[in-house]
Amino acid sequence: MPKGHRLPNAIRALTMDAVQKAGSGHPGAPMGMADIAHVLWTDILKHNPQNPDWVDRDRFVLSNGHGSMLLYSLLHLTGYDLDMDELRNFRQLGSKTPGHPEYGCTPGVETTTGPLGQGFANGVGMAIAEKILSGRFNTTQHQIINHHTYVFVGDGCLMEGLSHEVASLAGTLGLGKLICIYDDNGISIDGELSGWFTDDTESRFNAYGWHVAGGLDGHDQDAVKQAILAAQADPRPSLLCCKTAIGYGAPNKEGTAAAHGSPLGTEEIALTRASLDWSDAPFEIPTDVYAAWDCCGKGAAREDEWRRRYADYAKAKPELATELERALSGELPAIWESELNALLAEMQANNRTLASRNASGEMIAKLAQLLPDLVGGSADLSGSNCTHWAEARTLSRDVSDANYIYYGVREFGMTAITNGIALHGGLRPFCGTFLIFMEYARNATRMAALMGVESIFVYSHDSIGQGEDGPTHQPIEQLANLRGTPNMSVWRPCDSVETVVAWKAAIEKKGGPTALVLSRQGLPNLPREAEQLANIARGAYVLYDSSDMSNDAAPEVILLATGSEVSLALASAQKLATDDGLVVRVVSMPCVETFEAQEPTYRDRVLPDSVRKRVAIEASHVDYWRKWVGLDGRVIGMHSFGESAPGSTLFQHFGFTVDKVVDTVRELMRL
Amino acid sequence: MPKGHRLPNAIRALTMDAVQKAGSGHPGAPMGMADIAHVLWTDILKHNPQNPDWVDRDRFVLSNGHGSMLLYSLLHLTGYDLDMDELRNFRQLGSKTPGHPEYGCTPGVETTTGPLGQGFANGVGMAIAEKILSGRFNTTQHQIINHHTYVFVGDGCLMEGLSHEVASLAGTLGLGKLICIYDDNGISIDGELSGWFTDDTESRFNAYGWHVAGGLDGHDQDAVKQAILAAQADPRPSLLCCKTAIGYGAPNKEGTAAAHGSPLGTEEIALTRASLDWSDAPFEIPTDVYAAWDCCGKGAAREDEWRRRYADYAKAKPELATELERALSGELPAIWESELNALLAEMQANNRTLASRNASGEMIAKLAQLLPDLVGGSADLSGSNCTHWAEARTLSRDVSDANYIYYGVREFGMTAITNGIALHGGLRPFCGTFLIFMEYARNATRMAALMGVESIFVYSHDSIGQGEDGPTHQPIEQLANLRGTPNMSVWRPCDSVETVVAWKAAIEKKGGPTALVLSRQGLPNLPREAEQLANIARGAYVLYDSSDMSNDAAPEVILLATGSEVSLALASAQKLATDDGLVVRVVSMPCVETFEAQEPTYRDRVLPDSVRKRVAIEASHVDYWRKWVGLDGRVIGMHSFGESAPGSTLFQHFGFTVDKVVDTVRELMRL
Repeated sequence: MPKGHRLPNAIRALTMDAVQKAGSGHPGAPMGMADIAHVLWTDILKHNPQNPDWVDRDRFVLSNGHGSMLLYSLLHLTGYDLDMDELRNFRQLGSKTPGHPEYGCTPGVETTTGPLGQGFANGVGMAIAEKILSGRFNTTQHQIINHHTYVFVGDGCLMEGLSHEVASLAGTLGLGKLICIYDDNGISIDGELSGWFTDDTESRFNAYGWHVAGGLDGHDQDAVKQAILAAQADPRPSLLCCKTAIGYGAPNKEGTAAAHGSPLGTEEIALTRASLDWSDAPFEIPTDVYAAWDCCGKGAAREDEWRRRYADYAKAKPELATELERALSGELPAIWESELNALLAEMQANNRTLASRNASGEMIAKLAQLLPDLVGGSADLSGSNCTHWAEARTLSRDVSDANYIYYGVREFGMTAITNGIALHGGLRPFCGTFLIFMEYARNATRMAALMGVESIFVYSHDSIGQGEDGPTHQPIEQLANLRGTPNMSVWRPCDSVETVVAWKAAIEKKGGPTALVLSRQGLPNLPREAEQLANIARGAYVLYDSSDMSNDAAPEVILLATGSEVSLALASAQKLATDDGLVVRVVSMPCVETFEAQEPTYRDRVLPDSVRKRVAIEASHVDYWRKWVGLDGRVIGMHSFGESAPGSTLFQHFGFTVDKVVDTVRELMRL
Repeated sequence: MPKGHRLPNAIRALTMDAVQKAGSGHPGAPMGMADIAHVLWTDILKHNPQNPDWVDRDRFVLSNGHGSMLLYSLLHLTGYDLDMDELRNFRQLGSKTPGHPEYGCTPGVETTTGPLGQGFANGVGMAIAEKILSGRFNTTQHQIINHHTYVFVGDGCLMEGLSHEVASLAGTLGLGKLICIYDDNGISIDGELSGWFTDDTESRFNAYGWHVAGGLDGHDQDAVKQAILAAQADPRPSLLCCKTAIGYGAPNKEGTAAAHGSPLGTEEIALTRASLDWSDAPFEIPTDVYAAWDCCGKGAAREDEWRRRYADYAKAKPELATELERALSGELPAIWESELNALLAEMQANNRTLASRNASGEMIAKLAQLLPDLVGGSADLSGSNCTHWAEARTLSRDVSDANYIYYGVREFGMTAITNGIALHGGLRPFCGTFLIFMEYARNATRMAALMGVESIFVYSHDSIGQGEDGPTHQPIEQLANLRGTPNMSVWRPCDSVETVVAWKAAIEKKGGPTALVLSRQGLPNLPREAEQLANIARGAYVLYDSSDMSNDAAPEVILLATGSEVSLALASAQKLATDDGLVVRVVSMPCVETFEAQEPTYRDRVLPDSVRKRVAIEASHVDYWRKWVGLDGRVIGMHSFGESAPGSTLFQHFGFTVDKVVDTVRELMRL
């Protein structure tokens, strides 16, 4: 009697062969979850392999992303555009089958997974997006947005703290269309879990208000199917705990850590082939197996049925349909450009001293009117981050048509959920915390950049200006970390005017996230001519020249600054011009990434290569600014952690004063 | 009938007055937890205010560190060296009463808290340290190390994912002397918890295998005392869930978010004084209240009793006592220097190609023999990080005399626990994960630096050399992030020899943590003269000069590199010397922080200011290296995320080749 069923065994064969050929990879989870995956993907999942972008498809997330061959096998076998050559090229440069599933690389991959727990969190975000969109667009007659989100999680996902944050919130929000399947195989990389993971996971999820199906046999496809159907019927989020054997079918390695993360080896593979009664050569799938797996016909029929219903909807509710299509396309409303330009002019004219977090708060209220796709929230700092606005509608178990999420004290969960909302499509999510607590969420911030999704991160309390809370709450090295993240735009506006431009750029950005880095303390509005106003959007611009530079004359010294230090640079420059007769330039540099993307002539006009007397001023770590001032310039920044004291005291204490800047420039000019 | 009891009300008065005077701070939690704190600190806690360093004291952690006035009040009232002027200077520059409790700043503060959940994790680490030390040093007759760890946690701590990681592990390890008290006040900054936190916390902790006392009245001191005594008697870790009123005693703000994080205001304070029947002026405590709070006499007696028992122990077990005293002092064994130097010479002579993670693994095995205080572990990557060694003894519920911890997939928990072990004293903890997953633990890594504790972080798989796992697993901007962390030493050794020096420096470092950044792939051993061997410890040194530089002649070009790129720099330099006749220097720079601490003459000898033709080579983000090569140098590094492919393919693909380095130097020389 062979082990396993013939159709799931196709996954097992493809997995062990691809991992073996690559010489690395993780056969254990795909072989263990093959039966569950087979029944879910062929019997239950609403998907059309020929259109992975169908908006009302069920979402599927492999949170235990190291088991990527499970997903690649499923995509290949059910009919997605992923041919056998790609499976042969598993983990090779330029293939569509990288070591971990990557969003944007492979048709049908909904999110990039591998960093454990984050796929689970993305899935919670997708389920939230579905709930919000269904609340906004469905009518009693028309259920246009109505799909499930399925997430496979492993032991690693459930050990990660992130799983607590998002499961707890999913329970509170009653995300009934979220169905998670736990690959309970009792093994992690270091061996048997009994040494380090002894939770009663069923009780744990019950404590979160989930529907839990415990002790399922993950190799009994009928039992799994019935459990999924019961989960669909339950109004709570569901966790199905399936006992599986890691490396199922491998006679000597099944059920052991040896099956987890290395090729099985040719000998064990031969024995596994025998035990599975799988006689086909590597990367060969019999025609009847292909036929049984093929989901193209059924998928197309399901999408067609939806399209017919959608046509009725568009006829009955044309405004809603138009708005849904716009939201899904990511297009901005027609009035966007004119409204934003008017707002910019207004902010420049309103000569107010305002913390940039407050200016951001005003922007959010405005944007929420212009852009109904905007969905925001904060990790229990709604007031401090200025992320909440008067007309915001709070998401809850009972309220779906919402645009605000109280995330609780869950920075990592919030950020990864925000990525999941962005991945789902149809919404523009942002979320807020203090800049320092970006660190709690750090890898999700990075994952947004790696996936190229347009999450917007609102980070207030951006420096020692945070004040009395002290060094635990004062960012030092965090700005450099964000700036060093490829594909991340980091804006640190110096006043309410630059804050408008930063938000505009964040909303308009395609293919990557934006971090908005905002002050706690008030910032004076700075004067600008029309050209300067226009140039903010170029990331850096000349805010002040002490003499006329219209003939491209070079200044003697350039002060570079961002955010709260720009007004300090300006005051210092004016003093140096008046008292010392120096030709001084101030460059405001709210977004270095954007500046670096400008054409060389613009960059050289702002920062002429010939001017090496440069002083950068920023209340964050000094090292980053060496990039802009070189070995011969000076940086006025932070060399240490902060202190607990009023913010203005700290700016004095750490040398962010006109006197210090002036002295530094004078010392530099004497060299 | 006045609210509250007279003695806890002293905490309430001090708190509201200090927060009011500072103009910021968090009165709510101290006023809510005053009754619990009073009974714990005066009736139960084993402590001697006159000797906060007594090794067998109970440890107390305020994980909800924003309630710092609770801790400062307790320290002041029970007799620690924290006078009333310090309370008056709450949150002011240079005071011993910063906004959040800071380790090393205030006598009696056991750890720095504020970043939520980390105090809880530190407490788990302290309880682990107590368990290990008691297993190592106690005898049947002598219980020399035998204390509890008490942790106050708020809703925020329990929402953070970190709480899941450490509570789960504490349950598995059966840390029976860990007693946590949950300030269940139903309020967080954004308001009532019912909107975002609806866990059944009692069931959740039961699922972790904890002893849970639910539904306690946190204002009933006798009930709290009985619950603590029951917790002491239970072999499991304990959670006492105490219902409290935030801002207890404030007639208009009690039980609301308004009491959480702002001064109550003079009017509400006057009303609160009346409701508490507290008529004394701000910062005045009646003599009888002081007398009733004073723990100095009782504390000294308890310590004396312990000292008598310790004297008996030292008589009965002199070797153990000597070893315990050495371990607590942080001194290294007498043979340390000679053993390490011999090992260094041996590693230089053994001309092996070895991944630095493997070299590190060999070092750990050696160090564990030399230094019984060493305690290590990994977040489920023991084999990959090479943190485990053959003779390691695994910590478990039943095994206390251990030196290895299987942390499971819990990077943040592991790191914060490691900090807690270091804070406890008597052990030298290290822990390992992939460099990229430092990000999951990022803020705990930073907290080690902020607290100045000597945690050692083993980060393997340090670049695109990670290979097939792809960009989710390949660090790019993480090295710069670590280097930008004040007080953190970051070593990235280039071969087994530098790995020995890195570990030696990590163990010898005082007052801060070390990150050891290690390769997955094999690295050739590089040749060195005696002086070069000695200079590794200076953080950077001249590994190669193509001509004799003994008269301090300057090279034409300098190649700077670290880790796996040093051998590439060397091969490139040799080619440039041979083919182009250039005078080329290679500087190996395993630890920039250490190099920056050298005297200027040494630094200038290695990197003469006059030589501006500099090329830095490191398979991490380019920006960092501008600090060392300036505006006129070149950086061969990463500008983007990595890819999934074999590591050697990626080094080619991203331009880490002799050809690329040679071309870059030639281009630079033509300018």
